[in-house]
Amino acid sequence: MPLETLLAKLDSFAVGREMHSFASLLYPWCRSITGDGFRDTLYAVIKRIPIELHEVPSGTQVFDWTIPDEWNIRDAFIKNDHGERVVDFRNHNLHVVNYSVPVDRRMSLAELRLHLHSIPEKPDWIPYRTTYYKKAWGFCLSHRQLTALPNGEYHVVIDSTLKPGHLTYGELFLPGQMEDEVLISVHCCHPSLANDNLSGIVVATRLAQELRRIDLRYSYRFLFVPGTIGSITWLSRNEKIATRIAHGLVLTCLGDPGGFTYKKSRRGDAEIDRAAAQVLRWSKEPHRIVDFVPYGYDERQYCSPGFNLPIGCFMRSPHGEFPEYHTSGDDLDFVQPEALGDSLVKLLQIIDVLEGNYRYVSLNPKGEPQLGRRGLYGAIGEQVMAMLWTLNLADGSHSLLDIAERSNIPFSTLKTAASKLREQQLVATIA
Amino acid sequence: MPLETLLAKLDSFAVGREMHSFASLLYPWCRSITGDGFRDTLYAVIKRIPIELHEVPSGTQVFDWTIPDEWNIRDAFIKNDHGERVVDFRNHNLHVVNYSVPVDRRMSLAELRLHLHSIPEKPDWIPYRTTYYKKAWGFCLSHRQLTALPNGEYHVVIDSTLKPGHLTYGELFLPGQMEDEVLISVHCCHPSLANDNLSGIVVATRLAQELRRIDLRYSYRFLFVPGTIGSITWLSRNEKIATRIAHGLVLTCLGDPGGFTYKKSRRGDAEIDRAAAQVLRWSKEPHRIVDFVPYGYDERQYCSPGFNLPIGCFMRSPHGEFPEYHTSGDDLDFVQPEALGDSLVKLLQIIDVLEGNYRYVSLNPKGEPQLGRRGLYGAIGEQVMAMLWTLNLADGSHSLLDIAERSNIPFSTLKTAASKLREQQLVATIA
Amino acid sequence: MPLETLLAKLDSFAVGREMHSFASLLYPWCRSITGDGFRDTLYAVIKRIPIELHEVPSGTQVFDWTIPDEWNIRDAFIKNDHGERVVDFRNHNLHVVNYSVPVDRRMSLAELRLHLHSIPEKPDWIPYRTTYYKKAWGFCLSHRQLTALPNGEYHVVIDSTLKPGHLTYGELFLPGQMEDEVLISVHCCHPSLANDNLSGIVVATRLAQELRRIDLRYSYRFLFVPGTIGSITWLSRNEKIATRIAHGLVLTCLGDPGGFTYKKSRRGDAEIDRAAAQVLRWSKEPHRIVDFVPYGYDERQYCSPGFNLPIGCFMRSPHGEFPEYHTSGDDLDFVQPEALGDSLVKLLQIIDVLEGNYRYVSLNPKGEPQLGRRGLYGAIGEQVMAMLWTLNLADGSHSLLDIAERSNIPFSTLKTAASKLREQQLVATIA
Repeated sequence: MPLETLLAKLDSFAVGREMHSFASLLYPWCRSITGDGFRDTLYAVIKRIPIELHEVPSGTQVFDWTIPDEWNIRDAFIKNDHGERVVDFRNHNLHVVNYSVPVDRRMSLAELRLHLHSIPEKPDWIPYRTTYYKKAWGFCLSHRQLTALPNGEYHVVIDSTLKPGHLTYGELFLPGQMEDEVLISVHCCHPSLANDNLSGIVVATRLAQELRRIDLRYSYRFLFVPGTIGSITWLSRNEKIATRIAHGLVLTCLGDPGGFTYKKSRRGDAEIDRAAAQVLRWSKEPHRIVDFVPYGYDERQYCSPGFNLPIGCFMRSPHGEFPEYHTSGDDLDFVQPEALGDSLVKLLQIIDVLEGNYRYVSLNPKGEPQLGRRGLYGAIGEQVMAMLWTLNLADGSHSLLDIAERSNIPFSTLKTAASKLREQQLVATIA
Repeated sequence: MPLETLLAKLDSFAVGREMHSFASLLYPWCRSITGDGFRDTLYAVIKRIPIELHEVPSGTQVFDWTIPDEWNIRDAFIKNDHGERVVDFRNHNLHVVNYSVPVDRRMSLAELRLHLHSIPEKPDWIPYRTTYYKKAWGFCLSHRQLTALPNGEYHVVIDSTLKPGHLTYGELFLPGQMEDEVLISVHCCHPSLANDNLSGIVVATRLAQELRRIDLRYSYRFLFVPGTIGSITWLSRNEKIATRIAHGLVLTCLGDPGGFTYKKSRRGDAEIDRAAAQVLRWSKEPHRIVDFVPYGYDERQYCSPGFNLPIGCFMRSPHGEFPEYHTSGDDLDFVQPEALGDSLVKLLQIIDVLEGNYRYVSLNPKGEPQLGRRGLYGAIGEQVMAMLWTLNLADGSHSLLDIAERSNIPFSTLKTAASKLREQQLVATIA
Repeated sequence: MPLETLLAKLDSFAVGREMHSFASLLYPWCRSITGDGFRDTLYAVIKRIPIELHEVPSGTQVFDWTIPDEWNIRDAFIKNDHGERVVDFRNHNLHVVNYSVPVDRRMSLAELRLHLHSIPEKPDWIPYRTTYYKKAWGFCLSHRQLTALPNGEYHVVIDSTLKPGHLTYGELFLPGQMEDEVLISVHCCHPSLANDNLSGIVVATRLAQELRRIDLRYSYRFLFVPGTIGSITWLSRNEKIATRIAHGLVLTCLGDPGGFTYKKSRRGDAEIDRAAAQVLRWSKEPHRIVDFVPYGYDERQYCSPGFNLPIGCFMRSPHGEFPEYHTSGDDLDFVQPEALGDSLVKLLQIIDVLEGNYRYVSLNPKGEPQLGRRGLYGAIGEQVMAMLWTLNLADGSHSLLDIAERSNIPFSTLKTAASKLREQQLVATIA
């Protein structure tokens, strides 16, 4: 099936509900950068798309980094004098600082408070904290909970393990006509946080499902990795493959109700940067195109100077710019089926630009060809203008995206026009 | 005579009246893309400038096109029951759809109406319609006329012929010092329409008359062609000459009272584009510089990708943007002598830029030369600044137009300064 | 001592007062483009920095110019009928047109007036006039003085000499690690005018004093020359050295209370142009960056097409844009210690950019290095962002100034970050 047919048929609302339902399944699990929560997430993905799981042993050197010990957690709580769980991991996995070392001690409130984290400005939300590379432990709780804790002795238990194991990541390769690849990367290391990062996982999964149904020019590679260490691990094991990456996107925060934000690759004028801008522009919806900065998600690694891959980051509200970010407020209500569905559509449209962005040569480059006798010339409207522009710039040096940018005509209109011209043997694509 | 002397002497108002008078002579004739109306027009031009006429037989292949049969018309009318001519070609040649096949039939109003064209929004004007490449016939009339037609039987006659003959075009070559050519092209295929295209014909004719009186650096080639098929025909027969075209302009709509519009060549930064912008900018009159689009006049053909010539289109009000366009409202009153004269002046100024746009090298490039002892240094005004700029950028890589753009000093001022510096052997032009 | 230490320690107010005091010493002397006033000025400079004096004989050809005869003046006056000096060189050396030939005559007011200059719009100020290359004489006086002169006979004396001698200039070379040079040029030919040009002399002198105390990457060359003829003379005698000039500044008008003006080099995007813009931008003070024009001070010569050196002009209020310019109003009150001190600081900051503007390569270019285990990663603030940007753009093709411009982080912050990264062997500079 051609991609444009798929796009025409897609029921984005139904697909959005399905993605939201998948997110609901994944939401309660306690993910981290290693461990069974991460693995369980990939097992759920694997029921939808045939990703391959990779296990990399703790202690493995990956460029400047070392795979840490694997972290797993069964239970955690703070009990008061009466033996009541006043903070309980079973209620919310954000309560435990991710990667906390095990602890089982009694202590005064004063001592305990050195290990407690809350956000005074957002008194109802539990913050999200991690301690991946520093051995420590802690609890997170709402500021209201924190300030209500009476003096007294507390029993503090974190039933976690931190020992040699593996870092896990998932990978799916969809071969296309070309060896050149489009990379789609999502980080999957966040526990009960819906927009960042469950929305990325469910949209990437669904995107892969859709792409499997269509004829692809590019090959596609999907990565489900823990943030930072995961992309670094993949890059360190796949330097050759990285040279084949022609375009790529890091996906996250795709379920909130905000407008889209596209963060450009380090190159700033890569084809993916222009394809994303093209789609967002003609959506006529509010959106932002922002320049690359070396802070954010895994584009930091893909765009490090040793790789400098043409990979941008596609989001709705960017990290740090919505109040729910990295708190328990980023829950399943914050993420909306419509937004997820719309995000998928935009991604398919961006891919449609990449897939259809051929360069053309006119087979009648001298003077205009006579469109009238081929039934292609009528009242001057967007279709005729799209044909005239395509013919005029079909000199082998302009891609269809170049033509779209110069003519101010949407890529999709030009694609239709180019297709008609190709049928009439007026233009040909070049390799 | 140097061009600047000619410009200084030119009485643009008198010249404008002469051009308007020439347009008045040509106005009544029924031109088309072939036929005697077109020939007669060239015969009138030939009385002013020695153009050469070319006749290309019907059926000749010109790139993707074929020269059509030649069309001629003697008479046409619609008679009512009483034998009165209610629509009469003798009143206005726009009444017949141009290239109509012959017809001599009686028919009801209902049947006739399928062949009638009017403009409801402009009820007093007759529209201009053509059917060059589709065998059909029709009449054009004002909407007021159309709605006043009573039911009844009508006698419809178009006394035209459509049979093998020739496509005609005119060409004038003015040799200059260089083989490089400046092309001036006007389409001459419109019947009684004054701004589009008689203004182009009369201004081009007068421009050629003026250029014949002066010493030229470039060679100049004037083309009087039917639109589209004419420029395609010329290109197909002159591919080698086309490679010598260094600059060019398509002229049309040069008699209306609107401000100037310059439409850039496909290249967008050709010297002709910058020369036109330079002249219009320093005219300090309202004007527009618009980007190339592959729709318009014969620049579409000259700027097709197989040629991509540096040819723009010089107009006052552009096609489709004045209400009289392609209606009987585009008559001799709409076209004004002052506007025609002013158009000629601007064209001569543009040519003055092209002719004078040398690159210079300083013969004293190290430090400033001492202008004072040569009597060139006085109070700092535009003349001294023009000399300092010319000396400073006389490094062989800047043309005088480059210097004008960078210094924000008019080209004509710099030309005078450069001339003084050349007299003092402080700068030299390079080839 | 590193430059940043010097900058941190500098008491700009004390230094400003010292520079003002030096200007006060130089103010009364009658300088010209040749002669003892100029020499005396260099003798005063030599007490502070070890400049070398060069004497070039009158009649020497320097490119298109010839060194003129040397001019010296002892006394000049206009005496009235009563033998009173109504205009007296001893009161103000601007009273004599600089380079006046000797005169000793009696004449009527009518004849005398042909030799008198005043500024009616600024009736209290004496104008500054010169006649270097035309043998003439004249007096300048306030318009109030001029209009008060009664009819009568006047005795006019200019006790000057104009005979073969020398043009004098001073030069100081401070060797650095590299042969590449930074040129600092000041003109010293103006008599009692404080902002133009004493401020340039005292700031350049102090700048040289400071630079002698620090470790320099570039070599520095200071020129104290008469305007125009001086820089042309130096260039004509030092063509080889000129090829080593990597950056440069002409200094003048650095003592007035106006905001800074940086006039770019002819190149427009030279490193010095960007360094000056960087410093002024982050000063967050009002300032102007203006494009090169071939009029102004000695940058005209350094930027002539045969040299095209990357030399800009650093000023506060530019010539001609303050009312005191080239009048007796440009006196020691107009020039302020604070402004002089601030000018010196900005110059040192610009030099700090040039000195520190290395290109870096990451020694861990694949993925980010793990900053956390090196104690470099904390809350995301400007320091961490500066490190991330430096690492990301450390690909050998970006200088620190490139990084500053792209990241929108001040150069000084990036320099600190780069220094930390270099200590940790995460980046290295390249030659």
